[in-house]
Amino acid sequence: MLHEIIKNRYSTRAFSDKVIDENKIISLFEAARWSPSSRNEQPWRFIAGTKEDQNTFNKIAGTLNPANKIWAVNAPLLILTVVKLTVNSTDQINKHALHDLGLAIANLTFQASALDLYVHQMGGFNQEQAREIFEIPGDYEPVTILAVGYKGNPDLLPENLKARELAERKRKNLSELVFSDKFGNKSGLIENKQIELIQ
Amino acid sequence: MLHEIIKNRYSTRAFSDKVIDENKIISLFEAARWSPSSRNEQPWRFIAGTKEDQNTFNKIAGTLNPANKIWAVNAPLLILTVVKLTVNSTDQINKHALHDLGLAIANLTFQASALDLYVHQMGGFNQEQAREIFEIPGDYEPVTILAVGYKGNPDLLPENLKARELAERKRKNLSELVFSDKFGNKSGLIENKQIELIQ
Repeated sequence: MLHEIIKNRYSTRAFSDKVIDENKIISLFEAARWSPSSRNEQPWRFIAGTKEDQNTFNKIAGTLNPANKIWAVNAPLLILTVVKLTVNSTDQINKHALHDLGLAIANLTFQASALDLYVHQMGGFNQEQAREIFEIPGDYEPVTILAVGYKGNPDLLPENLKARELAERKRKNLSELVFSDKFGNKSGLIENKQIELIQ
Repeated sequence: MLHEIIKNRYSTRAFSDKVIDENKIISLFEAARWSPSSRNEQPWRFIAGTKEDQNTFNKIAGTLNPANKIWAVNAPLLILTVVKLTVNSTDQINKHALHDLGLAIANLTFQASALDLYVHQMGGFNQEQAREIFEIPGDYEPVTILAVGYKGNPDLLPENLKARELAERKRKNLSELVFSDKFGNKSGLIENKQIELIQ
């Protein structure tokens, strides 16, 4: 019953170099744009580099940790995600900003999946270098880099990355996540069900 | 080209009291469970109350700001979302925790939309009261309350809420969100396109 787009999504490291049509790229940002956010603050910003636009692509790639860079540069699109830390009307902190960036990235990822594209989010990059290179103001913060592209052949990955690519995906059980009455009390909704919709 | 589930999603205030099948509720949490997260920390937790489980439902509803409570209690399902602030292996702060909760909530919302359910996220509730009532430990934090249900008749809402329900949805333009070369530089990907896929 789980929607196949959610069921089939995963963070691949095996990207093909196939170019993504520009209208498809735009639709990814369009999906992010229509996310909900606290007080409609829309704290998400994106710096996008395609391989055709070598300048931005290479600047983003240059900030990646080597362990990510080795596979991520095969993707045809890199996106640096940036969050606005303050609310628009005042300079007060928007405590929902990071949460709402997450909402937008999931929507972007969903739209990507609908187009047979894969998204791999990375926290492993040099934030301060990214801030300098892209002249990101103090009330904004670089958060992740997304590698986006079509799926490639895992056999072309180095052995250690190929093993991670093919490893079983693991998550906590529902009983560890969903409670009722008080925190930690397993909910009757899932008790004795232990449905594992994805193995 | 934008997927219809993203296109049609919005945060309704007009909920029907139609009961949600338990297996559908479970599938919402299953969608959240399979979200990606930084180092697979899975910092999302949920306290879920249905109208049949009056106890948890009423406890969650009791923490809502009056302006939210007036419409949210019509929904058959309320969910208090909770984030784990620290990483699992040590007590260090997980700086991606809120972001990753946002990812999970968007996945939950997407699965809901696929089942004709609507989700309305609320930041307007008494966090400290929620922490006390549900005995939420110090390394966790209550973040939002979600009202979930089928769409009801907006004509049954008070006039001011009906007006908000029917108001045009507004977002920033893509040109304000997507940059290249440096922060604030409109990306060539969207320049002169100004596609407004949703009006």
